[in-house]
Amino acid sequence: MSGRTARRRVLRVAVPPADPGGTSRVTVSARADLLAGEEPLGIRVDGTALTMTMRTPGDDVELAAGFLVGEAIVRGRDDITAMKVCDGTTCGHVDHSDEEIGNIVDIALAPGAAVTSGARRSFMTTSACGVCGKTSIDDICVLPQAPLSADTTVFAPAVIASLPGRLREAQRVFSSTGGLHAAGLFTASGELLVAREDVGRHNAVDKIVGWAVLQDKLPLAGCALLVSGRASFELVQKAVLAGIPLLTAVSAPSSLAAELAEEAGLTLVGFLRGQSMNVYTGAQRVALPA
Amino acid sequence: MSGRTARRRVLRVAVPPADPGGTSRVTVSARADLLAGEEPLGIRVDGTALTMTMRTPGDDVELAAGFLVGEAIVRGRDDITAMKVCDGTTCGHVDHSDEEIGNIVDIALAPGAAVTSGARRSFMTTSACGVCGKTSIDDICVLPQAPLSADTTVFAPAVIASLPGRLREAQRVFSSTGGLHAAGLFTASGELLVAREDVGRHNAVDKIVGWAVLQDKLPLAGCALLVSGRASFELVQKAVLAGIPLLTAVSAPSSLAAELAEEAGLTLVGFLRGQSMNVYTGAQRVALPA
Repeated sequence: MSGRTARRRVLRVAVPPADPGGTSRVTVSARADLLAGEEPLGIRVDGTALTMTMRTPGDDVELAAGFLVGEAIVRGRDDITAMKVCDGTTCGHVDHSDEEIGNIVDIALAPGAAVTSGARRSFMTTSACGVCGKTSIDDICVLPQAPLSADTTVFAPAVIASLPGRLREAQRVFSSTGGLHAAGLFTASGELLVAREDVGRHNAVDKIVGWAVLQDKLPLAGCALLVSGRASFELVQKAVLAGIPLLTAVSAPSSLAAELAEEAGLTLVGFLRGQSMNVYTGAQRVALPA
Repeated sequence: MSGRTARRRVLRVAVPPADPGGTSRVTVSARADLLAGEEPLGIRVDGTALTMTMRTPGDDVELAAGFLVGEAIVRGRDDITAMKVCDGTTCGHVDHSDEEIGNIVDIALAPGAAVTSGARRSFMTTSACGVCGKTSIDDICVLPQAPLSADTTVFAPAVIASLPGRLREAQRVFSSTGGLHAAGLFTASGELLVAREDVGRHNAVDKIVGWAVLQDKLPLAGCALLVSGRASFELVQKAVLAGIPLLTAVSAPSSLAAELAEEAGLTLVGFLRGQSMNVYTGAQRVALPA
C-alpha cells in the first residue's frame, strides 16, 4: 500500500490564444504534481475473495465494512466478528504477493450473517462503481431491510444549503489533487459527523457507512449524507441500506436514482449549490413553507 | 428500454442567504426537470451472460462491442460474427422479463476469439465502472496486444487545447441534464470523429471504441481521446487496448492511471482547461518548443 496521494513530475503546457497554429510561443514548465492515490483493495469474507475495488488508500477497514452494508451482507457491527488488514503474516494466507500486503481486508462474519443472494458472486468494483457481480437485471437491486418511511426527521432548507460548505472545510486532499470525490455525514442540525474522500464516489460513501458500523451507529436514522458529485442508482441504494433518510448531491441524479429513492422512501436532493437545491423525492422531510 | 433522458417533477428550493435559521422566506417552485437516463444493460457473449452495466440507453451495440475490446476479448470487427439487441422474440432466449427487452445485447464471437483470462468471470459494471469481475490484484490489468510506442503521431498543443470546446459543441444531452459524462475521439488535426455521452464515464468510452469496431477502424492509431471528467486506471486501460496513443482528460488523473499510461507508452494529458494542460506521460507525442 502506498499513500492517499502520489507525487509525479508533470509538464505544464500553456498555449497562447492568439497563436492557434504554431508552437513557437507555447510555454512549458516542469513541476511536481500531487495525484490522488488509486490502488486495488481486495475484500475477503470468511477467507474467500468477495470483491476488489479501486480505491484511494486509507480507512480500508471502514471501506470494507461499509461495502458489506451496501450489499446487504452486514446490518450492523454485531454481524462482524473480526476485521483486519492483511499484513503478510497474521492473516492466515500464505500465497499473497507483495502488492497484496496492505491491500486486502479480511472480514469474519458472525454466525447467521452470510454472503447471500445480495452478493452471490465474486465481483469487482472500480474507482467509480458500487454494485458489481450481478449478471441479471433482477439481481441489481438489493432491497432495504427496514423502510425509510418510518424516519420522520425534518431538515431545514438553510441547513441543507450549508452542507457543501461544511464538507469543503473538512476536505483534506481534494484541493491539492483535484481528483477525489468527497462524502460527508451530518446530523439534522448540520453537524458534520464524518467526512471521507476517495477516487471512487461509492468508496467515499462506503467509508462513511463503515465508520458508522465501527461506531455501532447503524441504522443512521435522522442523518443526511452529502456527496460531492452526481447521485447514481448505487449511491441511493447505499444510503437506503444504511438507513440514511436524506441523500444530497452537489450535481444531478440519474433517472434510476430518483426512481429508487421514491420507491425506498428516501429524500433525494440534487444540484445543491449556493443557496438553492432541487428536491426530487421525499419532500416531506424538507421544511418548506406552506 | 426507455430513453436517454427522463422527465421528472422537481421542487426547486431557494434559501435566502440573509435568513439562515428560518424557513419563512424560502421560495419553492415546482418544475419539470430532465434527468439523465440510467438503466442496466446486460451483455451476453455466445449466449452466456458476461456482464451488466448501468448505462444511459442508446448506442448499446457499440457499448457492448467496445466493452469487449476493453476486456481484451475482441481486437477488431473480425472477432465478432453477430451483434443484436434482445427484442424478446429473435434472440433465442425464452426466459427474459419485460425489463430485459431492449436492455440486453447478444454478441457472437468468431471461432478463435473467446472469453479468456481477461474476463474469466461473470461481472457487473455500474454507471462509473469499467473493469469488473476480478478478485485478485493480478487479474486487474489486461495487457495490450500491441505496444503504443510504435505510434509516432505528434499532436500540436493548440490542437489539444481546442478539443474540449469541440466536444462541448457536439454534446447533445449534457447541457440539459447536467448528469452525463462525455467522450470524444479526434484525429491528430483535431477533427471530431465521434462523440458519446453516458452516466458512466467508462461507458462513453466503450461506445466510442465500439463505434470504431463497427467501422472496422481498430486499432485507433494516430487518434486522441478526450474524456470530460477524470482519468482513472480503467480509462487508461481502455485507451491502450483500443490502440489510442493520446488520452486527454478535463480533470485530474489518478496515480495508477499515470503509472499504467507510462508503462503502456500512452501519452496522458490532464487538467485540459482553457489554454493549458498537464502532460503526465509520453511527452514525445506533444509538439513542445525545444
